[in-house]
Amino acid sequence: MKTEEICELVRPLIPEGRILTQIADRYSYSFDASFGEYLPDLVIQPENKEQIAAIMKLANEHMIPIYPRGAATSLSGGSLPVKGGIVLDMSQFHKKLVIDRENLLAIVSPSVITGDIHQQAEEAGLFYPPDPSSSHVSTIGGNLLENSSGPKGLKYGTTKEYAIGLEVVTPTGEIIRTGGKTVKNVTGYDLTRLIVGSEGTLGIVTEAIVRLIPKPQARKTLLASFERLIDSGHAITNILSAGILPSAMELMDNACIRAVESYTPSGLPVEAEAIIIVEIDGHEAAIAEEIQRCEAICFAQKATEVRVAQTEEERANIWRARKMVSPAITKMGPTKISEDATVPRSEIPKMMERLHAIRDKYQLNLVVFGHAGDGNLHPNIITDKRNVEEMKRVESAVSEIFEAAVELGGTLSGEHGIGTLKSPYMEMELGKEGVQMMKKIKDAWDPNGILNPGKIFPQPGQTKVVLT
Amino acid sequence: MKTEEICELVRPLIPEGRILTQIADRYSYSFDASFGEYLPDLVIQPENKEQIAAIMKLANEHMIPIYPRGAATSLSGGSLPVKGGIVLDMSQFHKKLVIDRENLLAIVSPSVITGDIHQQAEEAGLFYPPDPSSSHVSTIGGNLLENSSGPKGLKYGTTKEYAIGLEVVTPTGEIIRTGGKTVKNVTGYDLTRLIVGSEGTLGIVTEAIVRLIPKPQARKTLLASFERLIDSGHAITNILSAGILPSAMELMDNACIRAVESYTPSGLPVEAEAIIIVEIDGHEAAIAEEIQRCEAICFAQKATEVRVAQTEEERANIWRARKMVSPAITKMGPTKISEDATVPRSEIPKMMERLHAIRDKYQLNLVVFGHAGDGNLHPNIITDKRNVEEMKRVESAVSEIFEAAVELGGTLSGEHGIGTLKSPYMEMELGKEGVQMMKKIKDAWDPNGILNPGKIFPQPGQTKVVLT
Repeated sequence: MKTEEICELVRPLIPEGRILTQIADRYSYSFDASFGEYLPDLVIQPENKEQIAAIMKLANEHMIPIYPRGAATSLSGGSLPVKGGIVLDMSQFHKKLVIDRENLLAIVSPSVITGDIHQQAEEAGLFYPPDPSSSHVSTIGGNLLENSSGPKGLKYGTTKEYAIGLEVVTPTGEIIRTGGKTVKNVTGYDLTRLIVGSEGTLGIVTEAIVRLIPKPQARKTLLASFERLIDSGHAITNILSAGILPSAMELMDNACIRAVESYTPSGLPVEAEAIIIVEIDGHEAAIAEEIQRCEAICFAQKATEVRVAQTEEERANIWRARKMVSPAITKMGPTKISEDATVPRSEIPKMMERLHAIRDKYQLNLVVFGHAGDGNLHPNIITDKRNVEEMKRVESAVSEIFEAAVELGGTLSGEHGIGTLKSPYMEMELGKEGVQMMKKIKDAWDPNGILNPGKIFPQPGQTKVVLT
Repeated sequence: MKTEEICELVRPLIPEGRILTQIADRYSYSFDASFGEYLPDLVIQPENKEQIAAIMKLANEHMIPIYPRGAATSLSGGSLPVKGGIVLDMSQFHKKLVIDRENLLAIVSPSVITGDIHQQAEEAGLFYPPDPSSSHVSTIGGNLLENSSGPKGLKYGTTKEYAIGLEVVTPTGEIIRTGGKTVKNVTGYDLTRLIVGSEGTLGIVTEAIVRLIPKPQARKTLLASFERLIDSGHAITNILSAGILPSAMELMDNACIRAVESYTPSGLPVEAEAIIIVEIDGHEAAIAEEIQRCEAICFAQKATEVRVAQTEEERANIWRARKMVSPAITKMGPTKISEDATVPRSEIPKMMERLHAIRDKYQLNLVVFGHAGDGNLHPNIITDKRNVEEMKRVESAVSEIFEAAVELGGTLSGEHGIGTLKSPYMEMELGKEGVQMMKKIKDAWDPNGILNPGKIFPQPGQTKVVLT
């Protein structure tokens, strides 16, 4: 169906200014923060759930693909309109953000920026833990559908652990509510947790109830340097077995440390094989004692240096080094392939070895950092997508990264999602039957396959991601 | 199909001694901890997943209902063989309980008693928080399929927050694995959380990976008495808004206090409208300060007495009163209808009013206690199922309890499940479309409707539970 024809169909349902058909507009919606460009036929900016429900019904009638889109910060292609059709840009959806202090909840519409939830919760003395790096721009709708997390997953869990109720437009255009305002709810199947992380293939969230927790009183942060990567791995597990549950435990490898130092010199030890950042939050008295124990554990594992931040400024300095990683490596080349293969914590040293071997085998610029406390590593390959020969090596390296993660008992994706980029590898992790059980749900809910098609499930015969 | 015919079919698949056909055996499997009796045609005690998979395939071929059964402590009829067929008694399934200290995990088979997980985790300095009252006898398989929780839900969440990987036999007899050993996993749909809480209607768990956390250093417990119920409600919300997250917050109403006192006198204030028990765990220094603040908050809300346990013995005494509730009320009459309607925390005072009004309207013996911190109340009606006239009043009262919970923004079931007892009320909470979306999953996975049929989904035209 052509743009003009679809436009005719949607015009009675959507106000004039909320239908975008110009090629320049359509082009703006053809990419996200991942890889690949796909031009949609049309962009619609719905303002309320009724418009979305009407569009979904129409789309089923005329078999038009629908692609919901938040802030498009997806690193796996979650919002790419790979089969054309209509992009539903949620940016103009009505904004609602209500903090319910008594019930420790926030009621939010999908268009709200996650950072605004953080801020309003904190103003009420509360805390919304999920904190993906993009939280200052990404919206809660996208965070919910991708089950985003970030550094706080270890202690606080992911978006899924906070979403307890949803309002959803189903792929066939029904409006349903799942869960509710209570943390305990076993009334039927947990559709809330099924839809959270479904990458927009099972429904479009139009409202969510997320749990908040009391804001931790205080926090302490340290940075430890290690000559040998394996020692940093032991430090991480020993801190946890000592009964300490940090709110974040980040790891940067040598390539990553060097990238940051050459981007903005901040006194990082460029000879270290690894540095780790450990942050603890909670009661003032408790964390003062715990951070000392963390320091001792790091030294016992042969840390060459341990810096405990004494002031908020020193803390900010430590985190600045971590936050500079992405900008620093972006400077290293025009194309960044950012993975999130995740392994059981105990396998981090082995996974790091495998990653460095892959880097050497394919002669690629690969840096590794990530949320080591929960085994969620971010191997990043810096390349140039115009270099066809190198991209072939990148493809092979990416396949081997996934193989390594699965062989070590891990998963293809810890937090970025499968999207378009990892779907060929689904069977490697889940087996044919595992993927089929997921597909049965998709087919039962979306019989015409019109909601975010081309995501999660491999195309028939597809066994490798194609970057070139 | 008759017992003998089914027996012929399963004999090649299952060792001789593991097929029970005698009427006395079958009768032993005809009830659980809820209401109603249904005689199965046959009982099988599988020892491994391959036997279960083979039985499921056979059952699909011959359309035989299959009823998985753990320790049968279900309060909602989860394991009742309502349509005859085969009970799969999991008690003889191989036992596996491995604590993985480095990854903070336990790997368990479904036949393991939950209390054994608690104990072995503690011996390793770790902690498995979900703690249903039946945990000394109930098995983790049942806990997973029912998403059991108990008093620690407020701070620590339910079974669902700990299950991160499963091995499952599907309704069509495939063996699949879901999730894995990592807390972060967004590889496709979250089948783990779909199966947890599915009441054995979507698959039979044959192995599970559950997350453990570091064991809290210490704990403090207080008991506070209130002349007015509403004041206890305010104390609960004020403790939470003060930034304190107790590990348990239990409530007992006056009828409940009197029942316990007349069963085993333990100095409870029989004139109080309510008592609450607050327990805090964590770092020694933190909880010492927090329990003092809790005490002050209770007094500020006009508590007539606050007892802070100074010794482990005093703590045990406080909890003994709470643990005597079930035995005490069981003494009050031959039949106990135990509900678990759950409301947003702020609505507890209103829900208590509604419950007391229902008690007076139908002239029933109704006591209320429960996990007030998360709004999970347990109204219990003490009655005698041989008294047909009274059971009619009980039926009406139960309907009104569900109506009240849903009207106050709550749910039919916080932790017991829907089973046979609450299925007629599903649409009241979820709407027709909400139930249909769940049913689509059930039908897609279990096209012959043979796995635990008669649970969760209402029979056509059924709008009321029938107790008489």
